[in-house]
Amino acid sequence: MDIVQQLKKIDLFHGVSSEKLQILAAQAIYKKYPAQEMVIGETDPIKAFYVVLTGRMKLYKSSPEGKEQTIQLLEPGDPFGLCTAFATDAFPASAMTIEESSVVLIPGALMETVAMQEPKLLLNIIQILSRRLKDSMALIESLALKEIPGRLASFLLHSLAQTKENPEQLELAITQRELAKILGSTPEALSRALRKLADDGILQTSGRTIRILNRRALDDLAEGT
Amino acid sequence: MDIVQQLKKIDLFHGVSSEKLQILAAQAIYKKYPAQEMVIGETDPIKAFYVVLTGRMKLYKSSPEGKEQTIQLLEPGDPFGLCTAFATDAFPASAMTIEESSVVLIPGALMETVAMQEPKLLLNIIQILSRRLKDSMALIESLALKEIPGRLASFLLHSLAQTKENPEQLELAITQRELAKILGSTPEALSRALRKLADDGILQTSGRTIRILNRRALDDLAEGT
Repeated sequence: MDIVQQLKKIDLFHGVSSEKLQILAAQAIYKKYPAQEMVIGETDPIKAFYVVLTGRMKLYKSSPEGKEQTIQLLEPGDPFGLCTAFATDAFPASAMTIEESSVVLIPGALMETVAMQEPKLLLNIIQILSRRLKDSMALIESLALKEIPGRLASFLLHSLAQTKENPEQLELAITQRELAKILGSTPEALSRALRKLADDGILQTSGRTIRILNRRALDDLAEGT
Repeated sequence: MDIVQQLKKIDLFHGVSSEKLQILAAQAIYKKYPAQEMVIGETDPIKAFYVVLTGRMKLYKSSPEGKEQTIQLLEPGDPFGLCTAFATDAFPASAMTIEESSVVLIPGALMETVAMQEPKLLLNIIQILSRRLKDSMALIESLALKEIPGRLASFLLHSLAQTKENPEQLELAITQRELAKILGSTPEALSRALRKLADDGILQTSGRTIRILNRRALDDLAEGT
C-alpha cells in the first residue's frame, strides 16, 4: 500500500505536495477498531489528527444517565480531532466506531510544523472546520427550533444533497436507532415520524431505502412552513 | 485613529506583521449600527470577514413562527463570517446587534490573498474556528441532554471561566430575555430556574449581578449529576 497515494485521496490533503505528504506518512500511525468501540473519550487529552480510512464512526456527547446526542457522523476520508490538534485542550466529545473502522493518526506537532510551511494545508483545515461549524449550527437549529418530523426532513435533505446518483432515493447508512441519536429523538418517536411522512405521501420506506415522493412537502417540513 | 494599531489588538490578527495589516486596513470598511439592527440575514451571500469593534451582537437562527435560538454572543474583538469568507456559501445564521455596535469589514478575497502569504493568520483563524466549534458542541449538548437549570449552570460556569477579576461573581452583559434565547428557554422558565438555584443556596441575584454561593453544587448541576 502506497501511503502517500492514500493520503492524497483525502480532502484534508488535497493539493498538498507529495514531499510534505511523505513527511506526514513517515510518522503516521494506523489503527483498526471493531464496531461499537470507543476511540477517544470526552476530555481525553489528545494531540493528534485522525482521519477515518474505512468504516463509519460518530462524534457524540452523553449525559450521566446514558442519553446520547450524535454530533457528527464520520465516513472514510473524514478527519476528526482537528479542533484540538493545534491547541492544548481536551477532546470536546467522544468518538466511537459504528462499524469496524480503521483510522490514520498524525501527531499534532508534526502536522503543525508541516502545515506552517504549506498554507494550502491550513486552508484545507479552515474549509473543513467551516463546514463542521455550519453543520453544528444546523443541528442547533434543528434541536432548538424544530419538531422531530422537521428534524427528520432536514436530515433527509442534507443526505440527499450529498447523494450523487439518485436525487429521489437514499440508502440510510445507519440504523434507525443511530439516526434517532442524531435527531435528538427516541427510536419510537422517529418511527412515528417516518410513519407520518409515509402516510402523508411524502416518502416511502423499505428497509434502509427511503424514496422521496413529494420533495416540495419535504422542503416545507424542513423549513417549518 | 491608527487603524493598524486597532487591528493589532484583535486576536484574529495576533502576530501578523504590520506590513500585512497595512494592506488589510487600506481596504477595510467601517460600519456603525444601532441596537437591535439586523447586520446579516441568514442565507445572505457575503464574502467578507467582520470583526466587532464596539458594542455587542449575536448570531442566531429563527423559525418561521419567530422563535429564536442564539448561537453565539459577539463582543469587541470577536470576528464573524469566518466560515463563509473563504467559501462561496451563504451566511449560515443571522447577525444582529444587541447594543449599538461598530464593525470592521475586510473583503474575503483580500483576506485570503494576505493569509496565504502569512500562515500565522491562517493559524489564528483555525484557532478561532476551533473554539467556535467547541462552543457549538457544548450548546448541542446543553440543548439535547440538559434541562434548563443544567443549561443555566453550564452558561454561568462558562462565563465565570472568562471572568478575570472575581471568580465568584459575574455581571450579566445581557438581559434575561436575551439569556433565555441562548439557553433555548423562555424568560419565564429561566426566571423559575434562577429562583430555584437561589432557593437551593447555589447563587444570589441582584439585578444583573450573580454571586455564586455554592460552586460545587453548580458544577454538579452543569454535569447533570
